[in-house]
Amino acid sequence: MKKAVILFSGGLDSTTCLAYAKSQAFDCYALSFHYHQRHAIELNAAKKLTAAWGVTHRIFNVDLQQFGGSALTDSQQEIPAYEAGSSDIPNTYVPARNTIFLAIALGFAEVIQAKDIFIGVSHVDYSNYPDCRPEFIASFEKLANIATKMGTEESDIRIHTPLLHLSKAQTISLGMTLGIDYANTISCYQPNEKGHACGWCHSCMLRKKGFSEAAAIDPTVYVQGR
Amino acid sequence: MKKAVILFSGGLDSTTCLAYAKSQAFDCYALSFHYHQRHAIELNAAKKLTAAWGVTHRIFNVDLQQFGGSALTDSQQEIPAYEAGSSDIPNTYVPARNTIFLAIALGFAEVIQAKDIFIGVSHVDYSNYPDCRPEFIASFEKLANIATKMGTEESDIRIHTPLLHLSKAQTISLGMTLGIDYANTISCYQPNEKGHACGWCHSCMLRKKGFSEAAAIDPTVYVQGR
Repeated sequence: MKKAVILFSGGLDSTTCLAYAKSQAFDCYALSFHYHQRHAIELNAAKKLTAAWGVTHRIFNVDLQQFGGSALTDSQQEIPAYEAGSSDIPNTYVPARNTIFLAIALGFAEVIQAKDIFIGVSHVDYSNYPDCRPEFIASFEKLANIATKMGTEESDIRIHTPLLHLSKAQTISLGMTLGIDYANTISCYQPNEKGHACGWCHSCMLRKKGFSEAAAIDPTVYVQGR
Repeated sequence: MKKAVILFSGGLDSTTCLAYAKSQAFDCYALSFHYHQRHAIELNAAKKLTAAWGVTHRIFNVDLQQFGGSALTDSQQEIPAYEAGSSDIPNTYVPARNTIFLAIALGFAEVIQAKDIFIGVSHVDYSNYPDCRPEFIASFEKLANIATKMGTEESDIRIHTPLLHLSKAQTISLGMTLGIDYANTISCYQPNEKGHACGWCHSCMLRKKGFSEAAAIDPTVYVQGR
């Protein structure tokens, strides 16, 4: 079995991505980041899921509060409400986050001699983050094949993005065929201490819209009265 | 003055790079990494130098021992002796280090709204590290202009590499014209607790060769008897 590193937050997308990589018979190394994000509840979800699936799981600690610049790494900034159809990049964008995460994943992949890296980005139902776009991924893949000792020997490192062209509804449908119980995933930017979702941030709204369009029951517990 | 982020280890190359950026009238933000490297003495050198020069200095903590894979991040691995003319990549190569450092520098640059990043890599007198080559830097620059919110507005992020085509001797000559006292810099992979250099690792040998070829006095204190 070929080894693969899967960027895994415990959210809807990366859980689907991990299930997909498993279905393709990769020996999966799920890699989560404790980047001192607004809440670490998603890391607990990630731990439970990988334990249940018997997948190797690593949590890499890199404190992005050291430079802040995002509502997810700076508690002084408020999480904005969802605006449908906006082309703005909301303040939940974390400067260079996917570049940093993929760079660290690349280093980890080289150490374990994996040439396949999976990331669950989509540029359909997304928040206009520049580092979720196809051109970003293609550019990072080129870089990865130049950047490492592994890459200089044989340039075949691949960044897999199975969800890149899928809507949230299509991702959910794919995940359901793969047997995912989405009750075990967290998307919300600001869940409460019980892990219940706010229901109105970008991430919640995209998730709700996805379940609705997929004509599937949304198992998420939303905080009442919002 | 335009802001610039300068990757700064406190070694010979990055000190020259920082002095060069200053000479080009950039408002310099020196960025060092505590990556849980074999010795942190270089960080003290970095602190002293930036304090003396009145340059803003940040130390970013990212523990690369979390995945290891290098003699610089895994104390079980021995530092190899220098082999002149070898095309091998020694085990002092840290998987994806420059990709990770540049990615973090890019995030920091975006937060402070700097579009210029300096890194003191050279591919002349170097240790064959893949992430010191011109094609790596060119590829990262392309990525940087796609990866961020800042880059999507106006694609003019630049990765400056003033030492890329300089031999160690030429770098030293440049640094001396910029007034650097190299006694304040540390290159050795394994200095002792006093900061004295071993004199035989790759980094020491390249440094010695550089001073010799530049016909300059090497102010480094080497451990006696090796």
